[in-house]
This record gives sequence, C-alpha cells and structure tokens, in this order.
Amino acid sequence: MFNAQNINSPEVKSDQSVVFRIYAPNAQEVRITGDFLPTEKVTTPYGEADAPIKALMTQDQNGLWVYETSALAPELYSYSVIVDGYETTDPNNPFYIRDVASTKNIFLVAQDFAADYAVQDVPHGTLAHRWYDAPGLGMDRRLTIYTPAGYEQSGQEYPVLYLLHGAGGDEEAWMTLGRTAQIMDNLIAQGKSKPMIVVMPNGNVIQDAAPGAGHQGYYKPQFMMPKTMNGEYEASFPDIVNFIESQYRVKKDKAHRAIAGLSMGGFHAMHISRLYPNTYNYVGLFSAAIMPRADQDAAGVYQNIDQTLAVQKANGTALYWIAIGKTDFLYQANVDYRQKLDAMNMPYVYRESEGGHIWRNWRIYLREFVPQLF
Amino acid sequence: MFNAQNINSPEVKSDQSVVFRIYAPNAQEVRITGDFLPTEKVTTPYGEADAPIKALMTQDQNGLWVYETSALAPELYSYSVIVDGYETTDPNNPFYIRDVASTKNIFLVAQDFAADYAVQDVPHGTLAHRWYDAPGLGMDRRLTIYTPAGYEQSGQEYPVLYLLHGAGGDEEAWMTLGRTAQIMDNLIAQGKSKPMIVVMPNGNVIQDAAPGAGHQGYYKPQFMMPKTMNGEYEASFPDIVNFIESQYRVKKDKAHRAIAGLSMGGFHAMHISRLYPNTYNYVGLFSAAIMPRADQDAAGVYQNIDQTLAVQKANGTALYWIAIGKTDFLYQANVDYRQKLDAMNMPYVYRESEGGHIWRNWRIYLREFVPQLF
Repeated sequence: MFNAQNINSPEVKSDQSVVFRIYAPNAQEVRITGDFLPTEKVTTPYGEADAPIKALMTQDQNGLWVYETSALAPELYSYSVIVDGYETTDPNNPFYIRDVASTKNIFLVAQDFAADYAVQDVPHGTLAHRWYDAPGLGMDRRLTIYTPAGYEQSGQEYPVLYLLHGAGGDEEAWMTLGRTAQIMDNLIAQGKSKPMIVVMPNGNVIQDAAPGAGHQGYYKPQFMMPKTMNGEYEASFPDIVNFIESQYRVKKDKAHRAIAGLSMGGFHAMHISRLYPNTYNYVGLFSAAIMPRADQDAAGVYQNIDQTLAVQKANGTALYWIAIGKTDFLYQANVDYRQKLDAMNMPYVYRESEGGHIWRNWRIYLREFVPQLF
Repeated sequence: MFNAQNINSPEVKSDQSVVFRIYAPNAQEVRITGDFLPTEKVTTPYGEADAPIKALMTQDQNGLWVYETSALAPELYSYSVIVDGYETTDPNNPFYIRDVASTKNIFLVAQDFAADYAVQDVPHGTLAHRWYDAPGLGMDRRLTIYTPAGYEQSGQEYPVLYLLHGAGGDEEAWMTLGRTAQIMDNLIAQGKSKPMIVVMPNGNVIQDAAPGAGHQGYYKPQFMMPKTMNGEYEASFPDIVNFIESQYRVKKDKAHRAIAGLSMGGFHAMHISRLYPNTYNYVGLFSAAIMPRADQDAAGVYQNIDQTLAVQKANGTALYWIAIGKTDFLYQANVDYRQKLDAMNMPYVYRESEGGHIWRNWRIYLREFVPQLF
C-alpha cells in the first residue's frame, strides 16, 4: 500500500530526463499533460490552437502510474495530471504556479541558462509586498518590489525597472511565473546586470491586489477583467513612480528609469512611455499586445499616438526593445507596429525568438533585456 | 460540456453554507475531505488518530459532482477531493496552502472573529522576504518580516515579536497557514494591538529557506528534518535578533521584545527565552512541544533547565502565556511543564482551548496573544 507522501514525483534525473509517478489505484486511465510534451491542434472557443498532448501513463508492477521523458531541454516546466478525465495536480509535488485561474505543478531542469531561474548560493535581494496610495484610481493598492542585495546598507541610489504583467496576471506574476527575483539575483551576482530595483505593480485597475491578497477576498480570476486596457492605468501610472521615488533610494531621472511589460504589459509600457515621453530611457515590449483601441474611456489616453511617439523619438531613448516569438498570435500586430516606427524613423532593437505567447519567452526576454539597462 | 474554468467551487454562500462542484465525467466515485467535516478514527503508522471523514459527493442532473454543507462556523478551512481513490485538489479553486508536503485548497468563512483572517479595507503592513547572515549556522538564511502600516514613514521605533513555526514549517508557515499579516493588520486597525514588527524566521537549521525558496531547490519537505531540536537554533538565535536590531527601527530592550511559537516553535521559544533570560518580556508557548531532550548535541543548550528558568523567573516577565487544546497530543507534556513552573512559583497565564494540535488553534492563540503585548 502506498502512502502518497512517500512517492517521488517528479524525479528530475541528472541526465535531464524526468519521471512522474501517480498513485491512483482505481483509475481506468491516467494521462499527463504539460509544456514539456509535443503539441497537437485542438479546437477551443476561440478557434484552433496548439496544446500539449495528453500522454498516457502506464502502470508499473507496483500499481503506480508512471511516465518517463527523454532528456529535456533546460527550462521551468509545468504540468497537470488527468485521472479518468479529471484534470488536476500531482499530490506528490508541493510546488505550484497559478496562471490566471489555473494552477499547475512545476519543475525545473536547471542546466545552462535555466540555472538563472534557480535560487543559487549568491547574495539575495529582498522581495516585499507593499501597499501604496493610488489617488488616480481612488484606492490603496499592492505592489511587489525587488531591492537588490545590499540595498538596505549601501546608502547608494539605484536605477529602477518598472516591470508590467499581462492580462490575467497581477503583481505576483513576474515573481512566480517570471522568476524575476532569481533572474535578478543571478545576473547581478554574475556581473551581467547592474544592481537595480524592480517594481512589479498590478495593472488591473479594478483590483487592489492579486486574487486572495486584496479586499475582494477569494474569487476566481479571469483573463480580461472589466476596464482592462481602457487607459486608466496608463493615466495613473505616475502615482506608482511618485511612490517609489519618495520611498526608496533611487535615481530620479530619465537615465535611470526603465519600463517593460509582457502582452498587455507591453501595451501598457508602450503607451506609458509615450504619454510621459521624457521619463523612461529604456523601454521593453515583450510580445506586446499592440493594437488600436477604439474606446476612449480614459479621456484621450489612446489619442494622438503618432504625435506623442514623435515627441518620444525626438527626446530619444537609450533602448527601445521589441521582442516576440515567431508563432505568437500578436506577431502581425508587432510587424505593423514596427512598420509604423520604421516609417517615422524611430530607432528600436528587434529580437525575434522561437515559440509563441508563453512565459518561457518572457523569462528569456527579461534575462536578455536587463543586462542592457543603465 | 463543462469547461473546468467555468465552474464555481467552492461557493461560500451568505448563510455560511458551502457548495463544492467537481467535474470528473468518467469517475465512479468522488469524495471530499476537509477540516469542516466530522472526524472518524483512522489507523496511521503512528497509531489511532482522528481524521475528517471522506464524504461522498453526488452527481447532479448535469453530471457535476456536488457536495453542500450546512452553515459552517467562521474559520479558514482546507479540503481535498478524492476521485476514484486519487486524492488531490479542486482545479476550480486557485487558492492553496502547503502544510509540510501536502497542499490543500482553502476557503474562508469570514464572519465573526474569522473576519480578522481576511484582507480588510484597512491600512496594510509590508511583508518582506529578506536574507540575513547567520554566522552561528554558517549560512545566509531567509526570513519573513512584517512591518506595520506606516513603518516606512513614521520615524518611530517599534517593538518586535519573534514568531516561530513548528516542525515541518518554515519561514512561510505563519504567513500562509497562520494569516499573520491579516491578523496584525486588522488588530492594529481596530486599536486592539500596538503596531509592532513581526519576525518569522526559519527554525530548521539544515535549511537556508523554505523548500523551493533556497539553494536546495525543489524537494519534498518532511516533518522532522535532521538536526531538528538539537539546540543549534536556540544557540544561534541572537544572530536573528542582532540582524533585526541593526536593520530596523526597533526598541532594543527587553520591554519591547516578545517571542512566541507553536509546537516545535513553542519548544524553541521556551528554551530561547530561558537561555537569554533577561531578553524577552513576553513569552508565548502555543501547543508547545515541551519534552525532555536526551541528546546534547549543542553543547549544553538543554542542560541546567531548572537553574536558567529560575533566573528567568527572578528577572521577571510581563507575560508568560501557555496555550493548548484539550485534545492535543502534547496536553500531558504541558501539564507536566506547568507543574514544574508551579513548583518553582514561576508566574504564567494558562489558556486551554477546545481541539487539538491544529492551525485553527494557533491562529486563535496569535489573535489572543498579540493584544497583550507591549
């Protein structure tokens, strides 16, 4: 008889193969699915999409359901288990990440570049959940702040990266799915990046904090919340910058401010850096959801785009970095945006990767973007 | 056809009843178990114990497995789902707590005293994960620090509560299972507690941080780790106090220091307060694992108990608070310890609650202990 607590799953072996073991004694069929598996075409309410296959597990002589991979490329992977059609988690793996409303188990093949996603024996920054007053949105709101190792004692002033999440994310996403603290600790320890403060705010203007962490209590998050990308966030963003610059030892000039974001956060970074066109010297658009906005809820935030971009161009940026995967559903929108920038001779650096609209790419982009800052 | 993302589970109704809904189309039998259910006697490797029943769910006309409770008493509850013998999580509930190696879904019936476990619309303190140098243990280690709302701007000095976890816990346990940030925010906002800093260190001397947060990477935690309660933690505890008192605006005298802990942490609080017998004016032993230690690994930490207690008694404490549940397996050990204190006329306050060795009690004890401090 198995005690579920005594099963080793997943077992990441030294050759980078992984074994999963599931105790489901009465199940007829157990499958595993996750981003380490090949994909297949599936039909979704939004059309055809690629999804990982649901691989059959097989019962060993002890009755355990087992699946063993070949050697996996270095990466932070996630997976689910499907027992007789019930898709849920592996009870032997206590490590989880929530993405919007779905929670999956994770494991790390920490070789090569993915070693930067692990906690290494290097000096560690401090990660704080803190609340700030957002008069522009009429509430107190929570954000996550990474201060680099030594911040508390150095007496020095630091540059700041504002790092924005996508639709469905919140102030926890870059920390959990994005491995920001680990990437920053490791890049700084390796001398590849300058010590900097990383501010991860919440970009959903109807939330004061991530689900479960705010006054709305526990509720199931959804992908596109009311008021998403209606301009209010961009218009109120100076509340965040003012808070950081009044509360932390930071360098308060354009040369020492960067803003970057993924998907909706890339959209936010594009618009915020253009609305305040002499504020950010470094701009990162990761798989940015750049598309025309017909609605004008927020009194002109999405008007005069060409004019404000021209001002931003005239003021200059040290780096305007655009990254996207070849199969991203936003690929064409980014082609169109680059054509607009080309037509106005606005300089930018373009990085095209494999893959689509996934966290794997956003971790890679962060790890490439940060060493270019300050 | 159900999309798992569109199911509402658990639904906490206004009358405090709760409905759980599980989509497991091919399952023969689905059960739910959790601490809101009555208990039954079960046989474990450690003898007979009380465990929640595994209640049958029933299929409704749409094929969803459903279980509805009667009105539940206010509390933070946890539960698991068992599909054809596979015990795991509810995929429609994105809120989890890990306890040692097992992860369960949670929900909150936030009436009455349990409203203090919810995030209310009150000023919020800052919660930080920070690393400190522990020369006594030869490593950098992580701890969790709660600073009350206003700390950063007030310029004032604050008292400090050192709050210790039990065996199997770590520097995250009081924050996740213990709801410390919510309890502190709410008690302070209600004027019931003084603003204070709460320091939650890691009491497992082989860990630098919680599983997954330290350099050991992802591994399955266990209940009693090597070197647990061998005296090294108590002996090295001044490293933590020195760090806090050099890094935060705190009042550095006995009158403004408190130490409390649950189970193993109660054992630690008892021994630390006795070893440094004029350092802590407030001591809280929550279901403390007070038992004789035969081993003497740490050069005398567990020797001379009577003599050091006598010194602690002579120096005096403002509060020596002992709390335990009537059915706790450590009940008799605490009777014995109180008899020792009685025999030496050492003053203490005793609080006996219903229930056993469970987090429900430790949250209640924290909420009662903190208003008595400073």
